[in-house]
Amino acid sequence: VSTSRSSAIDDRVLKVAKVGLDAFGSDLRPGPEIEAALLAVEAGLAIELIGDRGRLEFELRAHAPRGGEGGGAIEVVHAPEQIAMDESPARAVRAKPDASLCVAVDRLATGELDAVVSAGNSGALLAAGLLRLGRLAGVDRPAIATTFPWVSHPTGHTVLLDAGANVECKILNLVQFAIIGAAYSRVEGGVERPRVAVLSNGAEVGKGTSLTRGTHEILSRWQGELGDQPGEGGFEFVGYIEPGELFSGACDVAVTDGWTGNVALKLAEAAMAAWPRMLHDALVATHESSDDREGADRITAAIAPALQSVSRRVDPEAHGGAPLLGVDGALIICHGAAGPRAILNALLMARRFAERGLTKAIGRALEHHGELFELARNLR
Amino acid sequence: VSTSRSSAIDDRVLKVAKVGLDAFGSDLRPGPEIEAALLAVEAGLAIELIGDRGRLEFELRAHAPRGGEGGGAIEVVHAPEQIAMDESPARAVRAKPDASLCVAVDRLATGELDAVVSAGNSGALLAAGLLRLGRLAGVDRPAIATTFPWVSHPTGHTVLLDAGANVECKILNLVQFAIIGAAYSRVEGGVERPRVAVLSNGAEVGKGTSLTRGTHEILSRWQGELGDQPGEGGFEFVGYIEPGELFSGACDVAVTDGWTGNVALKLAEAAMAAWPRMLHDALVATHESSDDREGADRITAAIAPALQSVSRRVDPEAHGGAPLLGVDGALIICHGAAGPRAILNALLMARRFAERGLTKAIGRALEHHGELFELARNLR
Repeated sequence: VSTSRSSAIDDRVLKVAKVGLDAFGSDLRPGPEIEAALLAVEAGLAIELIGDRGRLEFELRAHAPRGGEGGGAIEVVHAPEQIAMDESPARAVRAKPDASLCVAVDRLATGELDAVVSAGNSGALLAAGLLRLGRLAGVDRPAIATTFPWVSHPTGHTVLLDAGANVECKILNLVQFAIIGAAYSRVEGGVERPRVAVLSNGAEVGKGTSLTRGTHEILSRWQGELGDQPGEGGFEFVGYIEPGELFSGACDVAVTDGWTGNVALKLAEAAMAAWPRMLHDALVATHESSDDREGADRITAAIAPALQSVSRRVDPEAHGGAPLLGVDGALIICHGAAGPRAILNALLMARRFAERGLTKAIGRALEHHGELFELARNLR
Repeated sequence: VSTSRSSAIDDRVLKVAKVGLDAFGSDLRPGPEIEAALLAVEAGLAIELIGDRGRLEFELRAHAPRGGEGGGAIEVVHAPEQIAMDESPARAVRAKPDASLCVAVDRLATGELDAVVSAGNSGALLAAGLLRLGRLAGVDRPAIATTFPWVSHPTGHTVLLDAGANVECKILNLVQFAIIGAAYSRVEGGVERPRVAVLSNGAEVGKGTSLTRGTHEILSRWQGELGDQPGEGGFEFVGYIEPGELFSGACDVAVTDGWTGNVALKLAEAAMAAWPRMLHDALVATHESSDDREGADRITAAIAPALQSVSRRVDPEAHGGAPLLGVDGALIICHGAAGPRAILNALLMARRFAERGLTKAIGRALEHHGELFELARNLR
């Protein structure tokens, strides 16, 4: 492992993004983080591991033969404290400025890093982002974005936000999420004119809650009266979608409050994980009853590649992380239970995020919609 | 088809439940309803089909050879009007007393029927239930119950309510749903002492919304201070569960507001339906790439029995309907898109519902919890 500063400086000169990884975030910290950092270096990334230096350098030495290839490098930045999963986020961020998560976000704020990944306390990452990076102009509340795969398209997906940053939301928040989500879909997904919808419990305008109906009204009026904005702010408002349509390709972006989005995300993950297990049990049961016990194994082996291919599409480990959008910097949140592959994917996402200038693109999109936000702010 | 009144009267004397079916509810009305009624009669049920008599008798004559076996019978009761899916529920129920849905609920209210099934406008069925049956003592808002299958158990499931009757709920509503759901789990699922949870976005007490935290507080205090009620009111409060735990067997009953419950139900259905389609596409893709195009068909055929067995567990068609609990009568709601098999299963559920005296059992359970409801009513 190279821990030399020079190779990292070369990377900066070449405009290769440097990604910081909170090494003491995940449930099994720092094992998955170290493994992910080593994999990332093999993939050519410049990684800064933030956490207890003694522990990290000890662990890295054990893996020495694997690091340093392909131009990547790992640096270690010392941060003596940690924030636990059950700590009160805002209090922990204020009380522990030397926690790995806080030091990582600080280094993003000062420009020493281009993006940060953490599998730690997501509330604390949100609080640190708000306190140390600040919000982009035009953002009242940042949002966590997650994706739902389309059944009928091998790579298509719908971006849902907010997936959990704000348990309670106002109409103005959801309207801002629409702009933020559209910018994300354009930059990260390459969708030129994203179709944006409001998640509801039915297609009719009268369905939903006062929150969804107000958001629907504002976005409809915007489309009708203010006219569409060309370029970076452009999107098409397509009305309500039902929860099942998150998998159908009916829209590119769906907005909801962080409570509903978090329930939706967790239910979809659990349902997607339940299915192959139930199929396996059913295969075993049908073959046991027909006295062909080896049949289940034979078929399981035959369908294994297809099962794995579907699992990769629906598995949160494949995405790896969810970006926190609306703060002035590239922050990616991983599950506490994230393994090395999930964290690696989050690191790759963080690099794309930084190299494509996503934060700046979201900022520009928000600038175009001041009139829309005034509409939403003045409703009721 | 026997449309004689005498066989139905015999059934009543023998305490066989008579189930009314709104024949003009589903999207393809009355085709699926007639098909379901004929299947139900073959299974020995006494069915009353409610709707336009001329149309129903014409359709039934075309199927004449299939009816009348096994002691079952179909009667037709005339109802000239229909309520459409997009009509305003309360207004439609008031304006159309002769609609099939209203006549069906009226006949349940007067005791001519023991249970009613409708695949029509669910809001209208709720309104008709409230207006014509009334609520059980101790119920402020009725709730729709739905079930989530447990991954690790072939028949186990968690009852979730409210799945969509009340978009906005108070703490008192969720506390009542806990009692109603526990009684349902005991009578319909045979669970002696149901474990009741509050659906939340995390396990810690501080998670959730003011609604979930208040409900958690009341049910915890009830368990600690008031002590458990023996017999029909008994249940164990197990705290928060996360959405994914609906599939894990962590609780028998989970309570939530009707907005969240409806989103959860629709997402789970869509995710479960997405899997086999994605698996099929992946099978085709992996075999096409290996130049073995028939392989996908061969494997699909081999896994078909297991796929069907999983689909039966997760498919809403298998459950058929969702009971509306808390009104003074047995009402089962089906999807508008329900087919004959779904409606048949709802009819079988309706018969069990009536024959096991579920409505009375819920009423008795509510009686035991006046003190708990006072606690909830006085919170804040």
